[in-house]
Amino acid sequence: MALRLARLGASPGWHALRSDYGQLRAWSPRGTSVRVSQLPGTAGTQSRRGLGHSPSAGGGSWLGTGLAAALAGLAGLAAAAFGHVQRAEMVPKSSGARSPSPGRREEEGDELARRCNAFMSSPVTDLRELRKRPEDMKTKMELMIMDIQAQVCRALAQVDGVADFSVDRWERKEGGGGITCVLQDGRVFEKAGVNISVVHGNLSEEAANQMRGRGMSLKRKDGKLPFTAMGVSSVIHPKNPYAPTMHFNYRYFEVEEADGGTHWWFGGGCDLTPTYLNQEDAVHFHRTLKEACDKHGPDIYPKFKKWCDDYFYIVHRGERRGIGGIFFDDLNVPSKEEAFRLVKTCAEAVVPSYVPIVKKHCDDSFTPQDKLWQQLRRGRYVEFNLVYDRGTKFGLFTPGSRIESILMSLPLTARWEYMHSPPENSKEAEILEVLRHPKDWVH
Amino acid sequence: MALRLARLGASPGWHALRSDYGQLRAWSPRGTSVRVSQLPGTAGTQSRRGLGHSPSAGGGSWLGTGLAAALAGLAGLAAAAFGHVQRAEMVPKSSGARSPSPGRREEEGDELARRCNAFMSSPVTDLRELRKRPEDMKTKMELMIMDIQAQVCRALAQVDGVADFSVDRWERKEGGGGITCVLQDGRVFEKAGVNISVVHGNLSEEAANQMRGRGMSLKRKDGKLPFTAMGVSSVIHPKNPYAPTMHFNYRYFEVEEADGGTHWWFGGGCDLTPTYLNQEDAVHFHRTLKEACDKHGPDIYPKFKKWCDDYFYIVHRGERRGIGGIFFDDLNVPSKEEAFRLVKTCAEAVVPSYVPIVKKHCDDSFTPQDKLWQQLRRGRYVEFNLVYDRGTKFGLFTPGSRIESILMSLPLTARWEYMHSPPENSKEAEILEVLRHPKDWVH
Repeated sequence: MALRLARLGASPGWHALRSDYGQLRAWSPRGTSVRVSQLPGTAGTQSRRGLGHSPSAGGGSWLGTGLAAALAGLAGLAAAAFGHVQRAEMVPKSSGARSPSPGRREEEGDELARRCNAFMSSPVTDLRELRKRPEDMKTKMELMIMDIQAQVCRALAQVDGVADFSVDRWERKEGGGGITCVLQDGRVFEKAGVNISVVHGNLSEEAANQMRGRGMSLKRKDGKLPFTAMGVSSVIHPKNPYAPTMHFNYRYFEVEEADGGTHWWFGGGCDLTPTYLNQEDAVHFHRTLKEACDKHGPDIYPKFKKWCDDYFYIVHRGERRGIGGIFFDDLNVPSKEEAFRLVKTCAEAVVPSYVPIVKKHCDDSFTPQDKLWQQLRRGRYVEFNLVYDRGTKFGLFTPGSRIESILMSLPLTARWEYMHSPPENSKEAEILEVLRHPKDWVH
Repeated sequence: MALRLARLGASPGWHALRSDYGQLRAWSPRGTSVRVSQLPGTAGTQSRRGLGHSPSAGGGSWLGTGLAAALAGLAGLAAAAFGHVQRAEMVPKSSGARSPSPGRREEEGDELARRCNAFMSSPVTDLRELRKRPEDMKTKMELMIMDIQAQVCRALAQVDGVADFSVDRWERKEGGGGITCVLQDGRVFEKAGVNISVVHGNLSEEAANQMRGRGMSLKRKDGKLPFTAMGVSSVIHPKNPYAPTMHFNYRYFEVEEADGGTHWWFGGGCDLTPTYLNQEDAVHFHRTLKEACDKHGPDIYPKFKKWCDDYFYIVHRGERRGIGGIFFDDLNVPSKEEAFRLVKTCAEAVVPSYVPIVKKHCDDSFTPQDKLWQQLRRGRYVEFNLVYDRGTKFGLFTPGSRIESILMSLPLTARWEYMHSPPENSKEAEILEVLRHPKDWVH
């Protein structure tokens, strides 16, 4: 099986992992690290099995916002130690079929293995560990985000029809790792990335202070603050200027404290960034997210919608990045289980909120002027992500982060013109107006 | 005379100024501000008079680094108050000829007016004010940077041969303003910006703390810290991948303190960012800057060269932005006059250090692959400027900044590919090696 092997520029410490689907052929000049990823279109039958399927109704999961990148960042703090274990213990895609399971424990194992069969790669956490704690939120969340990643990748690969996702497994010295799936320069998509990270270790003082700054009182345990963080994050940039960019992220944090207690919270969201305004699309997108939120309470959508408009604000431009969606952080009510159910419902609303829009517009005709305006809007996307996005900044400033997973959110191409200003009453001015004054799309 | 009029997106508070060369025709929907600038190629004879000239030997002045943008930022803190005065007092380009001067004071005025004739626009500071304090460093520096701006714009317009610079005068409510000259999408240049800002007011607590963080003890005077800051800053992005990007900035600060004393310092630098390494160009660029520094002491170039390599470091990539040059800040020795002379010499070294390189390569043949690599390098340029550059960040986070002047440093177009990695021993790998391990070019 063909594997794409490339040198990881400036990130010494990343370890090559044997692909689930192929042999390791590491190319590592000067002793730097390597990556192993599948060439689009060359993945084995196991990994591609699901790609022809339609996304199940409401089965896709999309999560949105910059804090996605925080996890990519977190997840990339360093590197080592896990490589051997993962390589040795990685469950073959077909293990369920290969090893009939007599006992209950084995059956659970088989059920898990069967579930893993649909993933883009084995989970980051060793399957033996996941089997030990099936009711632990860490297990539930990791499996949920792995599901989401696979569903989103399948739905998008199906829409693209030509290009497929490359799959990069990566690990982190302090603990954990991630799975980064990227489809680049396809028929429909300029760049589509769906990233998983599952990391653990001890919070740096800087990270702890950031969290304390949000009102948490975190007491160190033997001078340490052990944490687990996991999430799925994604940015989808279609080529056609009439098909909007979409971003989602859903994440879960646990921090252990001195008194034995555990701080936990969820965060996430999903937002749309069109080049041109399409009222129908905007209403469809927001309505789908609202319906998901409404299942868990009538106040959730309005609160998360406003939070989203406030968060994705490019202060120096006086514009939002896009037409919003939902955003939330530090969610730890009413209970861990109920918060998880809300996150899962929101995540599952992403494919139905977005994929119909991109399908509808991916073959729209457009002019060079439309493309130019798209490129200028891409520039604003870059500005938000590099200047304001907390997650991106956190990742970039964290030594040893996996930069490629953080910056996969950037568009393939972008443009900056000095003093560009669209004419009044143009369709370019129309979207700017909405970016400057967010609208209520569902009432 | 044709004027380009455009709406300033999200920067309420900017005032339209009557162009030196034409009538004001402000288009200001919804009460937002406007700008007035000359259309490339439509400038009046006054403003174009110098554009056919060769840059005088050593007469061009270039200054380099991100702190350039700081001044653009500083210079854009707010807006108003100066408009009327400037419009009323702006000296016509031909005032020297129109008003013969009998007395000494008048002669000085005429000499100043004649000097101003060569500028891209009248100085930011009212000419009456400049005449009152000819020996003040603020006057000397403002006239020097106006000279530099004009010389650089002329030299570049001559190289381009087709496009010309637009000239935007802008002002700042708290005091001062600037002159932003941009040549965009020319024959040779993708985007070339040369910005002047001359601003004054009271330092914000944040800015004062930044300065204290660099070791200054600033004591407030009646609760305030009156300051003056001025500088010229420039980023030049040629189209041809074999013609490197160049950046320069030279600036001067004064802060008045409680005890009546004045803190003053200069900063600046000049650096080169090639897409591909050309040893001969690198040596020429560094040698020219070294020769300028050597006139003021043998230790200056080595110190400023290292400072440059350290400053323009993209931490998350483990790469420098380019192949360096010189950089310095907080320069306040051995005396104000001698520091100014050093700055002037460095500034005047910029045209001879850079223009021969761009002339040599602007018509080089190149492949689509070369252009693609250039676009990826442009992406790194954007990363440095938006994530690390102190000046850009300072500008972006300062309410009321003139964003277009700060972000004129961004390239017209840029590209980000996931996990791009050039083959070993390629010319792309060659420049990466130098960006990772800066070289000594002149010994």
